[in-house]
Amino acid sequence: MAGGLMQCRRIMLKLLALCFIIYLQYAQVAEARIRHYKWNVKYEFKSPDCYKKLVITINGRTPGPTIIAQQDDTIIVEVTNSLITENLSIHWHGIRQIGTPWSDGTEGVTQCPILPGETFKYQFKVDRPGTYLYHAHYGMQREAGLYGSIRVSLPDGKSEPFAYDYDRSIILTDWYHQSTYEQATGLSSNPFVWVGEPQSLLIQGKGKFSCSSVPSPAGVCNSSNPECSPYAITVIPGKTYRLRVASLTALSALSFQIEGHNMTVVEADGHYVEPFVVKNLYLYSGETYSVLVKADQDPSRNHWITTNVVGRPPNTTVGVAVLNYYPNHPRRSPPTIPPTGPIWNDTAARLAQSQAIKSHSGYIHTPPPTSDRVILMLNTQNTIDGYRRWSVNNVSFNLPHTPYLIALKQNLHHVFQQTPLSDGHEFLNYDIYSVANNSNATSSNAIYRLKFNSTVDIILQNANTMNINNSETHPWHLHGHDFWVLGHGSGRFNISTHPKQYNLVNPIMKNTVPVHPYGWTALRFRADNPGVWAFHCHIESHFFMGMGMVFEEGIDRVGKLPSSIMGCGESKGLGRP
Amino acid sequence: MAGGLMQCRRIMLKLLALCFIIYLQYAQVAEARIRHYKWNVKYEFKSPDCYKKLVITINGRTPGPTIIAQQDDTIIVEVTNSLITENLSIHWHGIRQIGTPWSDGTEGVTQCPILPGETFKYQFKVDRPGTYLYHAHYGMQREAGLYGSIRVSLPDGKSEPFAYDYDRSIILTDWYHQSTYEQATGLSSNPFVWVGEPQSLLIQGKGKFSCSSVPSPAGVCNSSNPECSPYAITVIPGKTYRLRVASLTALSALSFQIEGHNMTVVEADGHYVEPFVVKNLYLYSGETYSVLVKADQDPSRNHWITTNVVGRPPNTTVGVAVLNYYPNHPRRSPPTIPPTGPIWNDTAARLAQSQAIKSHSGYIHTPPPTSDRVILMLNTQNTIDGYRRWSVNNVSFNLPHTPYLIALKQNLHHVFQQTPLSDGHEFLNYDIYSVANNSNATSSNAIYRLKFNSTVDIILQNANTMNINNSETHPWHLHGHDFWVLGHGSGRFNISTHPKQYNLVNPIMKNTVPVHPYGWTALRFRADNPGVWAFHCHIESHFFMGMGMVFEEGIDRVGKLPSSIMGCGESKGLGRP
Repeated sequence: MAGGLMQCRRIMLKLLALCFIIYLQYAQVAEARIRHYKWNVKYEFKSPDCYKKLVITINGRTPGPTIIAQQDDTIIVEVTNSLITENLSIHWHGIRQIGTPWSDGTEGVTQCPILPGETFKYQFKVDRPGTYLYHAHYGMQREAGLYGSIRVSLPDGKSEPFAYDYDRSIILTDWYHQSTYEQATGLSSNPFVWVGEPQSLLIQGKGKFSCSSVPSPAGVCNSSNPECSPYAITVIPGKTYRLRVASLTALSALSFQIEGHNMTVVEADGHYVEPFVVKNLYLYSGETYSVLVKADQDPSRNHWITTNVVGRPPNTTVGVAVLNYYPNHPRRSPPTIPPTGPIWNDTAARLAQSQAIKSHSGYIHTPPPTSDRVILMLNTQNTIDGYRRWSVNNVSFNLPHTPYLIALKQNLHHVFQQTPLSDGHEFLNYDIYSVANNSNATSSNAIYRLKFNSTVDIILQNANTMNINNSETHPWHLHGHDFWVLGHGSGRFNISTHPKQYNLVNPIMKNTVPVHPYGWTALRFRADNPGVWAFHCHIESHFFMGMGMVFEEGIDRVGKLPSSIMGCGESKGLGRP
Repeated sequence: MAGGLMQCRRIMLKLLALCFIIYLQYAQVAEARIRHYKWNVKYEFKSPDCYKKLVITINGRTPGPTIIAQQDDTIIVEVTNSLITENLSIHWHGIRQIGTPWSDGTEGVTQCPILPGETFKYQFKVDRPGTYLYHAHYGMQREAGLYGSIRVSLPDGKSEPFAYDYDRSIILTDWYHQSTYEQATGLSSNPFVWVGEPQSLLIQGKGKFSCSSVPSPAGVCNSSNPECSPYAITVIPGKTYRLRVASLTALSALSFQIEGHNMTVVEADGHYVEPFVVKNLYLYSGETYSVLVKADQDPSRNHWITTNVVGRPPNTTVGVAVLNYYPNHPRRSPPTIPPTGPIWNDTAARLAQSQAIKSHSGYIHTPPPTSDRVILMLNTQNTIDGYRRWSVNNVSFNLPHTPYLIALKQNLHHVFQQTPLSDGHEFLNYDIYSVANNSNATSSNAIYRLKFNSTVDIILQNANTMNINNSETHPWHLHGHDFWVLGHGSGRFNISTHPKQYNLVNPIMKNTVPVHPYGWTALRFRADNPGVWAFHCHIESHFFMGMGMVFEEGIDRVGKLPSSIMGCGESKGLGRP
């Protein structure tokens, strides 16, 4: 018996040791996992909407692979550029890059572009749960298909303030048949050549173009190509789905709806929303949402998921996907006509939905009650030296040849204009309803330098474009930060009265927010992330045409720059800084 | 009278002084003129053959501006890359770059590419009179329209060994409607996708595509667009013209002819040819010729100039231009049908013309009687890891990420493979008539290192491709040197017998030479130009698919490298070497 007891104790001790080892490994995994990806980026012929054209793929796919991580994980992505003669950079949209400003992936701002044949290593921490994106941030490459999702889950043992059974991600985009080169050439030509409305809308990279609508050489457009069969989300009747929906359109504002299903909005740009129910969700390029959808409709059939253009006269067919009720076949078309979504020009409804998004009551980050600086940003369309441009406070932005992060950290003051930009208060009385006649606009690569840890208010004001009775929607995206959305309004912003109506109680925090036609949007953020950060309209052509700017804050607190971000402008050579 | 004499003397002295000043200025100009160009390179929509597509222009033009210089001038070209996301480099084809190997413009070999937004300064001396070219040397950009002529005249007081009244330059190209991205993507795909034959042939940037032959969206193809009216060379009856004709085709070997006119060949690649008369001139991509043409035909009408594809089954319409007899209108079509040129598959005629080109008797550079090294280069098509490639001695070439010139000068031995390449004598018995079955081909970025000032023989041997009964024409181009063309032959090269037939008496010197189907070509050159020099097939897709190599010679004699050539691979950073 004694021998048996001894043996039993030995086994118990070994088991305990094993448990401890397992625990150690598990704990390590849960606390500081490294997610390592190797991506090869190249051109391939694909037919996302049945029309064959060159697209940019990551490891053969567009959208690229979804990054699935847990809060506090470190993400390493080694990106190899196989584009032959074209450079590249990838932005991690919504990731603040705290301590790693050189990994923000913004060409001209935080890094030189990645050259063909080279491999660049992005490394950063995902420090908050939520729904984020990645996409090209160079020229107009995002439009060519280089984008994907980032999904960050809560630490083990923590849970969201809402319940669901399954988690799914989709990205909505609009799709052009002209190459980004053709589009960009038109935009930078005099006379200006506009590409027109997109040919189709894609849901998770799949759309449907009507091949018979334009002549094309044999083999280019094929409606029965399986690459353009509608994307299907399979659901089990009775279950609740967290659907992470994001927009990375080049141009279009969208409405998203699921036939016969309500959606409960619970997350926006990584922040919990005080839940509210919608029939349709408006999305602007750069935004992410989570909605809860219960599979509570007729389970004997499939149901349409659709997206349609709003905010512009729609000349793009509605995009469709399928909510596939298991066990129906995912390719089985619903028996109904796909819902066309709300009318395109109901600005009031869109403004109302923007205003409805508040922080979840249990997760409020209270904003500072006042700000140290108020910058008014008047968005106008202008003609500069005969070229059509977008401007903010009459300044159209362009990028320098040496990225700001390198220039500022290394005190290369000559590589960009040092003139301070205006805080814009002189534009408070600008007539936003007249065709833009501010003919004194200029181009500049000057930036805003913000006092570290100061609180900054930004008022974005939309105005009339160069066409009569036309004002557009601009989704503005801030890198390196979330901001509080203090208010949205229509008409001209009044600095005496409107700030009194700011929501300082439960404003949502976001990284991308729309400014509606002839309207204004007020934001507040803390300049507490050392680095250099782009702030720009997320419409691909608008940023390309100058609708953006750059903020510097705490540059002296930025660590040693990796030489991998160099190679352009003033940063060529064999030495190391 | 005395006063009058004094005045006369004063005037004479002033005149003398004036003459002296004029002389000084003139002498200065004639001896060391600097030709300074500023070029802006961008994409534009053009319709060179009536079909509108994106082309790469220099200062709005394709072909770009002709560089007109005199022997010993220094050329400075400041190239600004406005291609948005695509890099760039420009090679000065036929210019030896003695003392300036970093200005050869060969991406991956002598420089990092020029990034968008940057300006790169090429500076070099044109040390010999003759007809040269420039063109993009990065990816397949040359095909997109980035090319032009360099014409270097003799020093004042010297004259050519032939007489003419006027001097004209034209470049012949073939033209694809698919973008270089689409073509390159197909070439580097598995399965291999071949773009097919070119849509048209351009003479000095103008061609004619039959718009009705394929469906295209409205406005894309317009036969009456003035951009695609035939190029016209206006001549005065009775005068003699020096016509500098060059080929920069992507793929095609060409025949060039002028209806009813003989042509006397007098120059090839900058060297005087013992004159001979032809009805048609065969040209291979990268070659330049001067021919004398006398306007001695019916002056009451215009005459056709045509070019047609040879060496491949022609699926490309004959290219036409007009020899416009003054005072006929240059747009007036000749009353005849344009001559179609010789039949495409008369290899013997093409070999005979190659063999007919000898050095002008008064300008013979006698080659060294023997060589220090003989490198045999067997050209084959192969499949490597499932990809279609071209190989030399079973090695398919690819470029490293750090240019060789930087790597070698700075002793960065790890950036490319150090294994020496074979001199190829083991391939002397290769069966050139069988479908390539040399399945052990590999890819490599290794190079040939040549002893400085040694004499090197290169035997280029063509073989069967991967298709039965098919061997192609390959025009090989050497950077940094001219070589003596010792011989052309058909069939397999025999190292015992053929060298005895070499022309060591009056071989022409060239920088580009064709190797005919199932044939061989023997070259000799002195490795006397310190630097790193590409040697490759000048067919755009063939070099892209690995048909090339690099020679190093006298790297220790190369001066300090300019930091402007850096920025890629290992050459990023703020320090200076």
